[in-house]
Amino acid sequence: MEKLVSLAKRRGFIFQSSEIYGGINGFWDYGPLGVELKNNIKNFWWQKMVRDRSNVVGVDTSIICHPQTWVSSGHVKSFSDPLVDCRVCKGRFRADHISTLPCPNKPSLSVEACAVEKKGEGELTEIRQFNLMFETFVGAVKDDSARAYLRPETCQSIFTQFKNIQTVSRQKIPFGIAQIGKSFRNEVTPRNFIFRSREFEQMEMEFFIKPEGDEGQKWYEYWVDQRFQWFIDLGIRASHLRKRPHDPDELAHYAQGCTDVEYEFPFGFSELEGIANRSNYDLTQHIKGSGKDLSYFDDQTKEKFVPAVIETSLGVDRTLLTVLADAFTEDEIGGEARTLLKLSPHIAPIKIAFLPLSKKLAEPVERIEEKFRKKYATDFDAVGSIGKRYRRYDEIGTPICVTYDFQSEEDHQVTVRHRDTTHQERVAIDQLESYLEKIFC
Amino acid sequence: MEKLVSLAKRRGFIFQSSEIYGGINGFWDYGPLGVELKNNIKNFWWQKMVRDRSNVVGVDTSIICHPQTWVSSGHVKSFSDPLVDCRVCKGRFRADHISTLPCPNKPSLSVEACAVEKKGEGELTEIRQFNLMFETFVGAVKDDSARAYLRPETCQSIFTQFKNIQTVSRQKIPFGIAQIGKSFRNEVTPRNFIFRSREFEQMEMEFFIKPEGDEGQKWYEYWVDQRFQWFIDLGIRASHLRKRPHDPDELAHYAQGCTDVEYEFPFGFSELEGIANRSNYDLTQHIKGSGKDLSYFDDQTKEKFVPAVIETSLGVDRTLLTVLADAFTEDEIGGEARTLLKLSPHIAPIKIAFLPLSKKLAEPVERIEEKFRKKYATDFDAVGSIGKRYRRYDEIGTPICVTYDFQSEEDHQVTVRHRDTTHQERVAIDQLESYLEKIFC
Repeated sequence: MEKLVSLAKRRGFIFQSSEIYGGINGFWDYGPLGVELKNNIKNFWWQKMVRDRSNVVGVDTSIICHPQTWVSSGHVKSFSDPLVDCRVCKGRFRADHISTLPCPNKPSLSVEACAVEKKGEGELTEIRQFNLMFETFVGAVKDDSARAYLRPETCQSIFTQFKNIQTVSRQKIPFGIAQIGKSFRNEVTPRNFIFRSREFEQMEMEFFIKPEGDEGQKWYEYWVDQRFQWFIDLGIRASHLRKRPHDPDELAHYAQGCTDVEYEFPFGFSELEGIANRSNYDLTQHIKGSGKDLSYFDDQTKEKFVPAVIETSLGVDRTLLTVLADAFTEDEIGGEARTLLKLSPHIAPIKIAFLPLSKKLAEPVERIEEKFRKKYATDFDAVGSIGKRYRRYDEIGTPICVTYDFQSEEDHQVTVRHRDTTHQERVAIDQLESYLEKIFC
Repeated sequence: MEKLVSLAKRRGFIFQSSEIYGGINGFWDYGPLGVELKNNIKNFWWQKMVRDRSNVVGVDTSIICHPQTWVSSGHVKSFSDPLVDCRVCKGRFRADHISTLPCPNKPSLSVEACAVEKKGEGELTEIRQFNLMFETFVGAVKDDSARAYLRPETCQSIFTQFKNIQTVSRQKIPFGIAQIGKSFRNEVTPRNFIFRSREFEQMEMEFFIKPEGDEGQKWYEYWVDQRFQWFIDLGIRASHLRKRPHDPDELAHYAQGCTDVEYEFPFGFSELEGIANRSNYDLTQHIKGSGKDLSYFDDQTKEKFVPAVIETSLGVDRTLLTVLADAFTEDEIGGEARTLLKLSPHIAPIKIAFLPLSKKLAEPVERIEEKFRKKYATDFDAVGSIGKRYRRYDEIGTPICVTYDFQSEEDHQVTVRHRDTTHQERVAIDQLESYLEKIFC
């Protein structure tokens, strides 16, 4: 993991936010390669979930919405972690973590054990609930009526806008509404790099169905399979993925089933995505909270009902970390250690690097790159030995390098080098387009 | 403008945020068509500014960053509007607007005139400065040390990460760093639909150059031209665009020039984008604030300097409003009034609608749509008369409708209908791909 974090920083995938000011815990910036990789992941989700499906539509709602949203959803009341303070070290800890968290003053002991040893358990304060929503005030007055929240999840606006969206899109049940966007949680202990941060991006979909019969179970199973397959299509090794159905005692009272897709990180199996059969709890809460009718009328059966939903919810940043962790590989080439990212060609931030063997050959290579720049994310590099350049592109997951040498001037061929195998072959320049198309399409 | 707002809501481009809770002033949600149009605009900017250029790289930084950022940039001290309250009507107004803003209680008079008439000017409070940054607290303690801000612009993190990004991207001056992302301003009076909202999205680029000689003026002029042309390439009518160089007394003390690109809205010419020659003020402020070295070393000349920047900055939402306003057209077809959006084909949210003349013909049409769905944003609609369906697609700016009728079964041809001209022609199904490619590529 440390090697991965170091590569991510060194090669411009991910930086600590505001590094020159000492950083800010739980916030991260994506550099030139990171933003391309992130966009490719988001586009891949949008393509598979919205564009490829005629029964899923997209939305993009505001991060700050009417605060009553979070009263109705239950977040104002209960989206909180239990906290305790230690009067000795002044640390603040999640109450459910104190038996394992090391004490900041005495890391050999847990917070709990330390409190007992020093002065007895009285040194830890009573447990109090800490709400994880970031608060702010909208408008020129700072009072209760102006208090608003940064959304802790993107899905609630899908519920509050359900009727509007269903009406304008003229979709009939079953259909889905999908969204990609930022969410914020004031985590007490952000950790594991971008795995748990305070500002993050989500990709969520609510699939609206009839609330009765076996529709719920049928679609729940359908989406668990679809979403598991999505990670494999993204290029993640199936051997490192698993489905974990929740135990009945993990489920919210209204939920009829929930399955996590988990990935085996260096720090253990962790949740990437949750697929949940949530009944019609969410819409019902917003009907109660707003007094508005969010029910659906079925033209064919003449029934009116409040739809149930299957929710699929994952984090962009967490997915990106998974992609990097899964692609990170160390091998040996000709007796030399090599680090490479085995990124799937469709999400690699740079698809093709164009490399003149010598700086003298820059001009014809730039002309070739120009031709491919509109279609692929390309790069051009003339600095350093060709071997060094190959290693640089291996390390950022570029699947293909195209090298132009002095012989190219004569035979109008270039060397195409493949990242994973380091296999090289000569390809005629006028065949390059169809050659590359086979790799990337 | 009212017609446009009504169309935007009716057809699912833009909704008021949290409508079922009475809305929240200054926040908007994008519906199924709005999110596609917005993404197309952002992708067009990214393509033209980052992907097509070898000397501009992208980043994606966090909305909440270290609060010292905003001390160094000057926002904590002076990113504010002057406010006054009226003790009679309890209204709160921007002090620089009271001579023209209508009084909420007596709209025939301005706030200022009303205050004078009723009780004299004393009824308006003293002017006080109201900072437009949204505040929040990061971590479990709400005190000054935990106070943070939602960024009011995306560019400051480009400055604070300048050194990291320059190092990892190995770019040499001149080069640019570009970003698309959300920003927040607690506007006292959000207005003109999505033109001035409290949560909005920006597309900004900082182009780093040598701070001396005529480099500044040269690149400033270059970017003014490039950015003006971008709006034309986006499909905006040049006749409604203008460049407005700022008067010397409008310029910040460090700025050496600023030009707005303006569009003629129904409510008058308004700023879409600012292109500014900002000298090296921004980097210098962050060097002072952080004590870190953000200077650049020129390999060739062996000079070390703090780069100057040309900034280009525009709002996504504002651009989307411009696109809609500019495309909004009313004409008459066969004596019947028609509303259409003359959106440029490359940004239209739905490119091609596939329409069976009768529901009986749905199956072969779905098969044809299937073929094009991966490449274009397509739609399928079998409901209503064909004329009604054409109108529906005209109204959302779909450039091409493909109609399959009973004759298509025989002659394997479809009718291709063009939105702007309503011109129709028969095209062989096996020629459709190359026919459409000519329109969209």
